[in-house]
Amino acid sequence: MNRQWIFRYNPEGPVTEDVFEWTQAPEPDMIDGQVLVRNRMLSLDPANRAWMRGPTYRPQVMPGDVMHGFTIGEVVKSHVAGFPPGTIVEAMGGWQDYALLAPEELTIRPADLPLDHLIGAYSITGLTSYIGIFDIGRPRAGDTVLVSAAAGAVGSLAGQLARIAGARVVGIAGGSEKCAWLKDELGFDAVVDYKAPDMRKAIRAACPDGVDIFFDNVGGEVLDGALRAMNEGGRIVCCGAVASYDAKGKSYVSPLLPGVLVTKRLRMQGFIVLDHMDRRVVAERRLRHWIETGLLRAATDVESGLERAPKALIKLLAGGNRGKMAVTI
Amino acid sequence: MNRQWIFRYNPEGPVTEDVFEWTQAPEPDMIDGQVLVRNRMLSLDPANRAWMRGPTYRPQVMPGDVMHGFTIGEVVKSHVAGFPPGTIVEAMGGWQDYALLAPEELTIRPADLPLDHLIGAYSITGLTSYIGIFDIGRPRAGDTVLVSAAAGAVGSLAGQLARIAGARVVGIAGGSEKCAWLKDELGFDAVVDYKAPDMRKAIRAACPDGVDIFFDNVGGEVLDGALRAMNEGGRIVCCGAVASYDAKGKSYVSPLLPGVLVTKRLRMQGFIVLDHMDRRVVAERRLRHWIETGLLRAATDVESGLERAPKALIKLLAGGNRGKMAVTI
Repeated sequence: MNRQWIFRYNPEGPVTEDVFEWTQAPEPDMIDGQVLVRNRMLSLDPANRAWMRGPTYRPQVMPGDVMHGFTIGEVVKSHVAGFPPGTIVEAMGGWQDYALLAPEELTIRPADLPLDHLIGAYSITGLTSYIGIFDIGRPRAGDTVLVSAAAGAVGSLAGQLARIAGARVVGIAGGSEKCAWLKDELGFDAVVDYKAPDMRKAIRAACPDGVDIFFDNVGGEVLDGALRAMNEGGRIVCCGAVASYDAKGKSYVSPLLPGVLVTKRLRMQGFIVLDHMDRRVVAERRLRHWIETGLLRAATDVESGLERAPKALIKLLAGGNRGKMAVTI
Repeated sequence: MNRQWIFRYNPEGPVTEDVFEWTQAPEPDMIDGQVLVRNRMLSLDPANRAWMRGPTYRPQVMPGDVMHGFTIGEVVKSHVAGFPPGTIVEAMGGWQDYALLAPEELTIRPADLPLDHLIGAYSITGLTSYIGIFDIGRPRAGDTVLVSAAAGAVGSLAGQLARIAGARVVGIAGGSEKCAWLKDELGFDAVVDYKAPDMRKAIRAACPDGVDIFFDNVGGEVLDGALRAMNEGGRIVCCGAVASYDAKGKSYVSPLLPGVLVTKRLRMQGFIVLDHMDRRVVAERRLRHWIETGLLRAATDVESGLERAPKALIKLLAGGNRGKMAVTI
């Protein structure tokens, strides 16, 4: 049987478990030219929420669809040359046990790397951090780099990459535990707890020389606080805007926009990692080197079982995770 | 005597004549090492309003100051080598007949160019358009370039420069007369009247292939309309935010920010022309060539007499001008 989570509707406010329905379908029938993949690990990403709201850089997830999701899986049946059973592949395999996919929807991955790194640091997540820091933000040694959602999958890597580039790194995260973790375990130079009173003042205090690069996963009030602390000529890497994904009604937008971009000569630039896949081989080689030499810590937050996927997404959107959020299947 | 406009206070809402006080002071006494300049033409700029509100890229204008302003003047007395009487200079000469300035505050200008071009196309205004289009926006032939405040000093030049670069140029301006002028006199390919109902729809209609570059002098609702029409990979040149300069209370900010920068991979970049003065010689040579060969029309809106300076600024901030707003002194 093929266990599946069906997407039911786009909620107005935060995602609840009611948004998904648990069903079982028969294992898909093989079709010539297709590959049957057993999903092994499912990635939960803030973008999952944006996909429900409308078309983004990819088609909207529609009611009745198996919920879309990025997966690492193993080929179990295939008559396609180059995809023998046992091949490890990444794909948009969805929230289910099995996916029948065309070879062009699969990317073959090394079989000797741990699954939680294959779905995190060595996939979209790691490449997003790499491109955002090095290609969009372009830190110089001595820069102050501020990262929002710093305890998240992308933020935790982005901050460490900026540190490797010689920057002073300040992370914004929710709660004293996550903040302590960033400092003590991941080597962030300073932290800002966005749940503490007066986040804007806390950002200023944590960045006495101002902010040269803001790597933003959040938007909203956090972006406003960063804009107030930016140095002239600073860069804002727009990686995500999770503050608006799960919001009910109107979300907060900084009243400083766009005037502050002029007076402080700021560059604010969004990117989607899928445009930068040509950089993957080099990026992955470097990420692997830094991970294997202990300079970079790829933190993961993995829960067991496909049945926990909705709970894991809700936890992620509430900021409950540390590092890459995924479930084993 | 030295006629002067004194800045009295920063108004909460739009600037009124009451903000300035007309006085007469004695002609300044010469001081060794200083140059006495007779102001000949005063530039009115949207940034004048921002200077009243607080420090920007330059110090705030404070109550009691002679109102700050960019001027073209003529040296009348000087014991400084290289600045003989009759030398044409640009300076922050202020809203007055005479200014006593240090040589390092003066830039010597060619005496054979008309004053209204010296204060417009061949000064900060022209260089702002040039840097914004070529260095920040970087149009490719075939791009659609949308310009807000297109009938203004910077916008009218910026649109024409984009046309020279092979782009299709669409101007946003207020009222059918200014729109007709942009099309018929300045060669814009299409126009959007922001005073007409549903500006957002009008932008879409005028830009059937979407917008590749938005050269923005305005911000607010106009920026929101442009963001909705932007193509993936588009660039937003943040040159000014006049919608917020003269606003009472909270001004409108697009709810699409910053999420749309991510999904459409947009670069939104502010600049201040003073950072780019190293480009002036080349820019001015090219602007002069285009003006003298008739490719570029440097439109000016010049009123007579220093006493009209407040009225001219109010007209400018209300969008009443066509091209460079200035007064003769």
